[in-house]
Amino acid sequence: MDTALPLYQRLATHYREAIAHGSLLVGDRFPSVRALMGRHGVSLSTAVQVCRQLEQEGWLEARPRSGNFVRRPARPAGPLPSEPRAGQLPDPAQFVGIHGRVSEIIARGRQQPVSVNFSSARSAPELYPGEALRLAAARALRRHPDLLVSAPPPNGCPDFLQVLARRALDAGMNLGAEEIVVTQGCMEALNLALRAVTQPGDTVAVESPTFYGLLQVLETLGLKALEIPTSPQTGLSLEALELACDHYGPIAALVVVPHLQNPLGCTMPEAHKARLVDLCAERGIALIEDDTYSPLGEDDTVLPALKHWDRQGGVIHCASLHKVLAPGLRLGWISAGRWQARVEMLKYAQSRQNEALGQLVAADFMGSSAYDRHLRRLRAALGSQRRRTTEAVLEYFPAGTLAARPQGGLALWVQLPPGVSSREVFERALGEGIFIAPGLMFSNSNRFDGYLRLNCGAPYTPAIDAALRRLGAIVGELA
Amino acid sequence: MDTALPLYQRLATHYREAIAHGSLLVGDRFPSVRALMGRHGVSLSTAVQVCRQLEQEGWLEARPRSGNFVRRPARPAGPLPSEPRAGQLPDPAQFVGIHGRVSEIIARGRQQPVSVNFSSARSAPELYPGEALRLAAARALRRHPDLLVSAPPPNGCPDFLQVLARRALDAGMNLGAEEIVVTQGCMEALNLALRAVTQPGDTVAVESPTFYGLLQVLETLGLKALEIPTSPQTGLSLEALELACDHYGPIAALVVVPHLQNPLGCTMPEAHKARLVDLCAERGIALIEDDTYSPLGEDDTVLPALKHWDRQGGVIHCASLHKVLAPGLRLGWISAGRWQARVEMLKYAQSRQNEALGQLVAADFMGSSAYDRHLRRLRAALGSQRRRTTEAVLEYFPAGTLAARPQGGLALWVQLPPGVSSREVFERALGEGIFIAPGLMFSNSNRFDGYLRLNCGAPYTPAIDAALRRLGAIVGELA
Ligand SMILES: Cc1ncc(COP(=O)(O)O)c(C=O)c1O
Ligand SMILES: Cc1ncc(COP(=O)(O)O)c(C=O)c1O
Repeated sequence: MDTALPLYQRLATHYREAIAHGSLLVGDRFPSVRALMGRHGVSLSTAVQVCRQLEQEGWLEARPRSGNFVRRPARPAGPLPSEPRAGQLPDPAQFVGIHGRVSEIIARGRQQPVSVNFSSARSAPELYPGEALRLAAARALRRHPDLLVSAPPPNGCPDFLQVLARRALDAGMNLGAEEIVVTQGCMEALNLALRAVTQPGDTVAVESPTFYGLLQVLETLGLKALEIPTSPQTGLSLEALELACDHYGPIAALVVVPHLQNPLGCTMPEAHKARLVDLCAERGIALIEDDTYSPLGEDDTVLPALKHWDRQGGVIHCASLHKVLAPGLRLGWISAGRWQARVEMLKYAQSRQNEALGQLVAADFMGSSAYDRHLRRLRAALGSQRRRTTEAVLEYFPAGTLAARPQGGLALWVQLPPGVSSREVFERALGEGIFIAPGLMFSNSNRFDGYLRLNCGAPYTPAIDAALRRLGAIVGELA
Repeated sequence: MDTALPLYQRLATHYREAIAHGSLLVGDRFPSVRALMGRHGVSLSTAVQVCRQLEQEGWLEARPRSGNFVRRPARPAGPLPSEPRAGQLPDPAQFVGIHGRVSEIIARGRQQPVSVNFSSARSAPELYPGEALRLAAARALRRHPDLLVSAPPPNGCPDFLQVLARRALDAGMNLGAEEIVVTQGCMEALNLALRAVTQPGDTVAVESPTFYGLLQVLETLGLKALEIPTSPQTGLSLEALELACDHYGPIAALVVVPHLQNPLGCTMPEAHKARLVDLCAERGIALIEDDTYSPLGEDDTVLPALKHWDRQGGVIHCASLHKVLAPGLRLGWISAGRWQARVEMLKYAQSRQNEALGQLVAADFMGSSAYDRHLRRLRAALGSQRRRTTEAVLEYFPAGTLAARPQGGLALWVQLPPGVSSREVFERALGEGIFIAPGLMFSNSNRFDGYLRLNCGAPYTPAIDAALRRLGAIVGELA
């Protein structure tokens, strides 16, 4: 052993060799942290580092509540999907009926029997603290016997707003509870943000590719989408945004997912975030930040929100608990800077205040350290699911397939070999009960027909593995 | 006794006289139905009729769960508030900033200490089945352990949609569960309906006076309100609507509250309803029916919805459980006829599907006869509260004050003596902790400054009585 290496690395090497020699088999339970401490006489932190190192390399898989298990390490992930070309003028793609297209795809998935759903960005119920939330709900109903028959408080329940404000502080946002309005998920928050800062007919810049739900919102509000090239590594291209400002008419707003973008999984570097806030302030562009995924990164590094850099109230922060805490609760929130009063008014006119029960449940759970424990488990599970999906794609899909390297989140963005249309893959796969999200859902143009998005939200099972193998074969037939 | 009269009327006379002679005092418990049956050897139905007759005349007050109590009969209610003048061309009132005005009034009520709130159309929690709903919630959480961590079904929970469809049948609407979408209260339903059938800049006809929330929705959607005179007795004037069609540009939609209109409390005669549906079909006007209050009439007569007469899918039915079942649940629904697919799409893009728990609670309770019992109790309580408020207004307010005769609902519309501005009444009353809704909230014009709306949703207490007496004195000072 190389004694120049830190102790945890030497121990990691020891276990890698044990696996290579077959003394630990794929699927075996890996010694617990406590066992490692005892067996090697090392500290808690060294033992944890050993596990983390092996997990990062793909030799271990953390299963929530059961411990670590040995697995086949990932093949090197190979090249990344294409970067947008630099200096390229963004596409002034406008309303071309994305809604009909997306609705058709969603409807098809509902009509046809689907055995494996890779389509929606959704994770499995068992990854969420169902039992704890259920108990919190029972508690709230006991403590507030009139909860279901009393009008909920305007803008949100004070306890919940407090917890949100406290957690916002961790992401570098110094917000009072009165600067937050609770919404029906991030979806309603985005609607309100856009309604607050635009008029029908206005142009709104978006990432390309982007979350298709956003394109639908723009379409229903009569707004034009200006698609800004976005890197699978560093997110929105600031260069392209500046070009767009110079070459196209005024841009009323920009909607951006700075962290773990959907579908790319990328996170903007901090310098880009700071620069973006300034750029939008200079150009008079309302900056709408969709922060749906930030707690779902690889580790518990907190990602400072764009709003952290906001000096003029020009950033509208939107977020949601739907993916991170409870897919059964439609809880989002918005803090709208200088448009706060307008957003409150629009929310009141659009749907009045949210129900209280879900808010009390969330406040109860998020006010405790159980929330942080839950997030750690969820992150580990999603990380493992993303890695296994990536490996399967690289193994089963034909040469020329490229996979993004998402830094977190629920999805894997896959670039198909040249000439393969994801729309065709979609059709054939659906015929076999496999439901995917073809790339054309993520843009008003057809630019991403050569891509598809795979949801990694469900624990990796043999059925999922088999479906990915079939998908790979379908792509192979079309390549 | 006049034996030509039916038995129940003779018995009613007997008890009226007993009260007149002081053998039954105001505040005394009135004999129960069972006692009446035994004492007079009459049938159940006769005994019930006696109570109902006396209650209608104002001699009895039904208190939920405790029985009937003797009370001071109402003074004759006197003349009704003015009818709109016939043949008068409706006012093409457009956006004049109702939103700012209403927001200011609502905000004032939140900032200042309010001891008695007559402002919002809201009833007291104790009039709703809090305990039964709580148990239903606990049951739903037990039966569906993953409820809070699973994505809710699209468009609504099947059980809930079934119950809504079944109850719609009672109101003469033959709807499949798949023709209904669950919304965040009637408010979101109205937003979706208007977004489905209009473009910004379009003209939408509304009742005048109308529910101010509707004027806010129109304003936020960039729609112009065309206010159609509305009778405190028979609702929307069809004559005025026809005039408006002839004299103003195209009308994209009409929003109407055919039953127990807010603020007037009137219900359209059936012949008017049938005619209105035809008229809108002939003129190509999308007819949006807001049926928020219909279960809150004087008795359990079912009021057939406008949609009952709809042959061409041109009526959009919107309703809510917020006032009738549970003020703590934000549950509404929409059935949009030929715009159904568009409304589903808009709902998905605006806020995704509703949470499931509230829907399961409502389905559970509404699927049982407990719901009908609750509605009977609620109707009786509201009826008594409306009557007592009316009496107090007629007693405490100066001569020249006129009160509408609401056929149900939560509100009493009051016409002040000539020259008195409700805005001034509002200011003075708020200074004393009494919060009212001045008439100018119910129109884009200043037409109703001489009116105010009093909420009758709370059980009548000495504090309410004292507040009404103070209000009367304030009006007297201004008269
Ligand atoms: C980037 C992004 N924003 C918003 C949403 C919708 O969020 P919610 O479910 O909270 O309305 C999604 C869901 O897929 C998303 O991916
Ligand atoms: C006529 C009318 N429609 C709709 C609403 C709002 O309904 P909901 O609370 O279900 O959104 C109200 C509430 O005051 C109302 O009076």
